[in-house]
Amino acid sequence: MSPRTAAGVDPTVPAPVVELVGLAAYTELAEFGLLAARSVDAPDLATRQALADGADRALARQRALFALVSADDGVVPGVVGATVMAPFEDALADFDARTDTDDWAEGLLKGVVGHGVAQDFCRILAGGLDGSSGRAVRKVLERPAPGPEAGADAGADAEAIWLLARMAAADEVLASRLALWGRRVVGEALGVVTALLGRRPQLVVLAAEAATRLGAELPAGRDTASSDTEVAVRSWLVARLTGEHTRRMDRMRLAA
Amino acid sequence: MSPRTAAGVDPTVPAPVVELVGLAAYTELAEFGLLAARSVDAPDLATRQALADGADRALARQRALFALVSADDGVVPGVVGATVMAPFEDALADFDARTDTDDWAEGLLKGVVGHGVAQDFCRILAGGLDGSSGRAVRKVLERPAPGPEAGADAGADAEAIWLLARMAAADEVLASRLALWGRRVVGEALGVVTALLGRRPQLVVLAAEAATRLGAELPAGRDTASSDTEVAVRSWLVARLTGEHTRRMDRMRLAA
Repeated sequence: MSPRTAAGVDPTVPAPVVELVGLAAYTELAEFGLLAARSVDAPDLATRQALADGADRALARQRALFALVSADDGVVPGVVGATVMAPFEDALADFDARTDTDDWAEGLLKGVVGHGVAQDFCRILAGGLDGSSGRAVRKVLERPAPGPEAGADAGADAEAIWLLARMAAADEVLASRLALWGRRVVGEALGVVTALLGRRPQLVVLAAEAATRLGAELPAGRDTASSDTEVAVRSWLVARLTGEHTRRMDRMRLAA
Repeated sequence: MSPRTAAGVDPTVPAPVVELVGLAAYTELAEFGLLAARSVDAPDLATRQALADGADRALARQRALFALVSADDGVVPGVVGATVMAPFEDALADFDARTDTDDWAEGLLKGVVGHGVAQDFCRILAGGLDGSSGRAVRKVLERPAPGPEAGADAGADAEAIWLLARMAAADEVLASRLALWGRRVVGEALGVVTALLGRRPQLVVLAAEAATRLGAELPAGRDTASSDTEVAVRSWLVARLTGEHTRRMDRMRLAA
């Protein structure tokens, strides 16, 4: 946990916190983009506004994340964001290319499923963080996205989930198509998680710590450098993420 | 100035205030969409974040506008927005179709120029409002868009203007193309203003009042029902909006 001296980042914040905040902030920017894009081509004004409000809450959570690691030294606010998100730039390029769709409802579900997996992943990893900064990260990630109005105290994708559930309930053919599409998207999203674990050893350390705290049985010694441990951690993570995905699809009345 | 009883709207707010707030809020939602769309396909992470932050400030101003007319009676926040924006739904559909572009820089300039005209239009009309609610509307429209951070205390398109100025300074051919494109977009935007004045007599009344207060010479009697007055008001407005557009293009070092 060596201190960092990267631009805009508080050097007393432990490196795993900076790492996880960067990943979580990047996923909020991605969620902003997915919701905003579906707002722009929404079928009516109310939907357009609802998805814009959701996109807005993704950025509000992103700001709360940046505040956790920002050096209070008068740097331009954008600097800390660019620093912590840089390792994850293009992390979703493959995912985006493989789940490209012109269909509005599929695009919306892509946001709900893909971002859902990403957020669950970040929340699980946060369980592996120590100390007060770990608690602070968990607090931001576990509470609903902050909204400027009382009624907006919900996740960024609250409106999207509600819209998809309503559309699926009204159209059985669409519901079947979305269920299939959801399976494809979750597969690609789990692929992103696996690729990230391969590229960023610090995330494997956090996942192993989180798994142990949650009582998962990992190979003895918890030597995260061993490939046995990495495989076990990955399997544990994929199982948990898949479970959360199933619950999310259930809430939209879509078969997982 | 008969009171309204529309859903979510404070019935004591004068009708012209409700009208102008609806128009201004709708233009902020449009600005959100234009900036967010260019964020999604931005060439790099810093640009993507900068334009997302601008889009976010457009929605922050929209919320400030809704607060001016909202009945404090526990209605869902979205209701007042849907009510006041409804008359302007599709007001920009023609504009969007006529200024469709696949070019990233042109899309960005469309946002700056189109939204610039729309905001100037709203600000000018606010000059025709009476009383304390008129002052409150002017205060929201005249101050920079509210930003959550100190450094973000700028218009929603601050980053877009800066990016375009930098791109134009680095590439003479692009600068010429953007200058031409800006002329086309401003022409279409002025067409939207003219169409709105034709459809919404209350906006003509506000414009005539604003023009008179600013010392414009209109046909005697200021009978806004007369077509002479309407023509004079329209010419005065177009001249002012064109002047503001020229200043905006100058700031980006683009020929107006």
